[in-house]
Amino acid sequence: MITGAEQLRTYECDGLTNFRVVPQAVLLPTSAAQVQQIVRLCARERIPFVARGSGTGLSGGALPHERGVVISLTRMSRILEVDIPNARVVVEPGVINAQVSDRVAPHGYFYAPDPSSQSVCTIGGNVAENAGGAHCLKYGFTVTHVLALEVVLPDGSLVHLGADAPDPVGYDLVGVFTGAEGTLGIATKITLRITKRPEAVETLLAAFATTDEAGQAVSEIIAAGILPAAIEMMDALAIEAAEAAVHAGYPRCGGLLLVELDGVSEEVAELMPEVERICRQCGAQQVRRARSESERALLWKGRKAAFAAMGRISPNYIVQDGVIPRTALPAVLREIERLGRAAGLRVANVFHAGDGNLHPLVLYDRKIPGEEERAERLAFDILRLCVAMGGSITGEHGVGREKMEAMNVMFAEPDLETMQLVRCAFDPDRLSNPDKIFPRPRLCAERTGPYEPHPLERAGLAEFF
Amino acid sequence: MITGAEQLRTYECDGLTNFRVVPQAVLLPTSAAQVQQIVRLCARERIPFVARGSGTGLSGGALPHERGVVISLTRMSRILEVDIPNARVVVEPGVINAQVSDRVAPHGYFYAPDPSSQSVCTIGGNVAENAGGAHCLKYGFTVTHVLALEVVLPDGSLVHLGADAPDPVGYDLVGVFTGAEGTLGIATKITLRITKRPEAVETLLAAFATTDEAGQAVSEIIAAGILPAAIEMMDALAIEAAEAAVHAGYPRCGGLLLVELDGVSEEVAELMPEVERICRQCGAQQVRRARSESERALLWKGRKAAFAAMGRISPNYIVQDGVIPRTALPAVLREIERLGRAAGLRVANVFHAGDGNLHPLVLYDRKIPGEEERAERLAFDILRLCVAMGGSITGEHGVGREKMEAMNVMFAEPDLETMQLVRCAFDPDRLSNPDKIFPRPRLCAERTGPYEPHPLERAGLAEFF
Repeated sequence: MITGAEQLRTYECDGLTNFRVVPQAVLLPTSAAQVQQIVRLCARERIPFVARGSGTGLSGGALPHERGVVISLTRMSRILEVDIPNARVVVEPGVINAQVSDRVAPHGYFYAPDPSSQSVCTIGGNVAENAGGAHCLKYGFTVTHVLALEVVLPDGSLVHLGADAPDPVGYDLVGVFTGAEGTLGIATKITLRITKRPEAVETLLAAFATTDEAGQAVSEIIAAGILPAAIEMMDALAIEAAEAAVHAGYPRCGGLLLVELDGVSEEVAELMPEVERICRQCGAQQVRRARSESERALLWKGRKAAFAAMGRISPNYIVQDGVIPRTALPAVLREIERLGRAAGLRVANVFHAGDGNLHPLVLYDRKIPGEEERAERLAFDILRLCVAMGGSITGEHGVGREKMEAMNVMFAEPDLETMQLVRCAFDPDRLSNPDKIFPRPRLCAERTGPYEPHPLERAGLAEFF
Repeated sequence: MITGAEQLRTYECDGLTNFRVVPQAVLLPTSAAQVQQIVRLCARERIPFVARGSGTGLSGGALPHERGVVISLTRMSRILEVDIPNARVVVEPGVINAQVSDRVAPHGYFYAPDPSSQSVCTIGGNVAENAGGAHCLKYGFTVTHVLALEVVLPDGSLVHLGADAPDPVGYDLVGVFTGAEGTLGIATKITLRITKRPEAVETLLAAFATTDEAGQAVSEIIAAGILPAAIEMMDALAIEAAEAAVHAGYPRCGGLLLVELDGVSEEVAELMPEVERICRQCGAQQVRRARSESERALLWKGRKAAFAAMGRISPNYIVQDGVIPRTALPAVLREIERLGRAAGLRVANVFHAGDGNLHPLVLYDRKIPGEEERAERLAFDILRLCVAMGGSITGEHGVGREKMEAMNVMFAEPDLETMQLVRCAFDPDRLSNPDKIFPRPRLCAERTGPYEPHPLERAGLAEFF
């Protein structure tokens, strides 16, 4: 157990750094039985608890509660089972995303969801946030790849959700648990689907004068019936930052596309020229294919580093995450530019363009009075815009603490109430990651009321670890 | 409203004919507002209600309640919106599955889930049962294709679940509602994802001496990294029945495979010879490709008619639906044969072999005393076998009334209790399709107790329609 003030500070936030709360303690269980013991004590003593993986989340989903404990799953990091013939892997929640692919690579398989943080983020965190990544366009989000879960519920009981079968039997609780951001309990064992590695992968870079042209190319590629493994877009400011950080060799231009095709060699060989043709037709000034695996890796390195690279061109920035219908891309980009100008702030844009998932990066300087507030307001206005265009407030980062208020923009009160029916059924005392997702927590029957924090000693938590 | 004894008999069962219950009345709303009115009255007067589409379900999910009403959604059959650029269609629940594909076909799209009953079954019913079909191997079940739902909850409120975005925001209630078999409410509007029609489709027939050899070919096709649109298998008895019914031109053999590839022409052209080679290597006596669209349609006609065709070779039969890991196929088939011999009954086998979804058909004669019971016991034993091999009790037909008891074989008590937490949260009085899915309905807090049936007149239901 960690209780030292200095050490606790490590846990005060996740990847969303403008919210910080120091927890009372951090517990590091090594087994499901230990997680159960902790959660049972928390339930008995009404102590809020927040599960945490590597803390790379971008919506504050792992933000601690001031009167609560953090349950770190990093010591539960074993790959328990690898079943190649049935394309399944069973892992503990603290296993790192990339380790799953590494482990099954010799057999020609990979684990498809690939958030930019995949070299450090955990599968447990991926499940909590239903993490995405560039290749979700073709392969789907985390939920598509989770077959079954062992879960400690907020009352401390251990249950099994789902089964090793493609179609859920009874209620699909794996689906509702995945992406519930730890509000329904803590996963202690996860059965993942792994995917056969495609025979061929090719990546193309296309440089356009404007994001409008690049967006047009995206629409036409999809309309042609081509489903790339990924289509990423970056605007001039994002390119500038990425180049400053990793020298990926991106041409300076108004809109850059990375299009990756994978599949059978013949298929990729047939379709890549078609993608190239569409890009040129839409005005691409430069189109080139990665000619080697290292060239391909470099193209991706620029994209994957884009968020962090903002530090090169701005003291502070907010990573936003919204979704729009693909067809609305040009209109939304123009409006984001207008909103940015009106706010007197720069906005860099990075997208998973194929599925309409925008990542506008609002640049600002915390030291200039009022600028942080303006940036937050602009980021929120961009979300409103996404919803107004028929999209949504998060593509893959989750609601967490950051977007609780935006839930009101997206959902009517009865729709939020319906979600909270499930929350109350699982966690009537709202101890499991409280104050996340829902803007106005529902009163769950008679059992609600303010938390009564207890000294950890009385809870008996100190005796563990 | 239908209350005549003769007419009510039409609704006494769905496709599972060995359970029959005549409802008190059948209501035929034409709008969500009318569904709300009915459900509110049912809630107030504690009248059980069962939603129903075309009644083609195979697990008794639409079996009426003796003291309740059936809410038929067949009059809510409008396609409300077709949005080709964003690949979405909005429909009412009574729309027929095949009509969706028909409607978007001129634009080069189709609706992927294709249960054998697709020419008559409704989208609402598909959502309730999370329907599958031969092409789910590649394209996924109904849940993969439902983006958003408008739902009347069991208390009569109207809510919206999901959004027109690829990643669910907040709890994924679309996922839990889809496949909940009407126990969480009634969908009144459904937003579907449509899929670009592939450039090329080719279907191959391969005839093997045994299902073992055919099963080996399935494993090797998948292991080669090929993901066919469908891989169907039929054994000798199933072939015999299908031939008797539709003369599809199937060769008489121990195990028949239909392998369908779709995608870009070049891809299909490259992979089909590979599939052919694998089939021959595994011992196929005959391998041939459909040379025209009509030949292809005929190959599928035999497969899609296989269930109904059993009537040609047996007075009665039970359609079973279980899932096993693909690798267990040969062992499971041998054990099914042994169980059948021990029971003195014939079992025909039809599979979605690619995803391990078995449809054993237990043949019997109701007129022979004791044979129906033996057949039911054998069907249940086959499910036990599926679970023992690491599979599940239903691949696509749902639990409904038929498999309630089998839920105990598949899930431990705490896991079933966890599902019922959700049921109780949505429907504490268990009025929405009661006595389905769960073998022992949970007492939901204080609000439980036996139903108090009321005359329909008092409920005010008669004033509608």
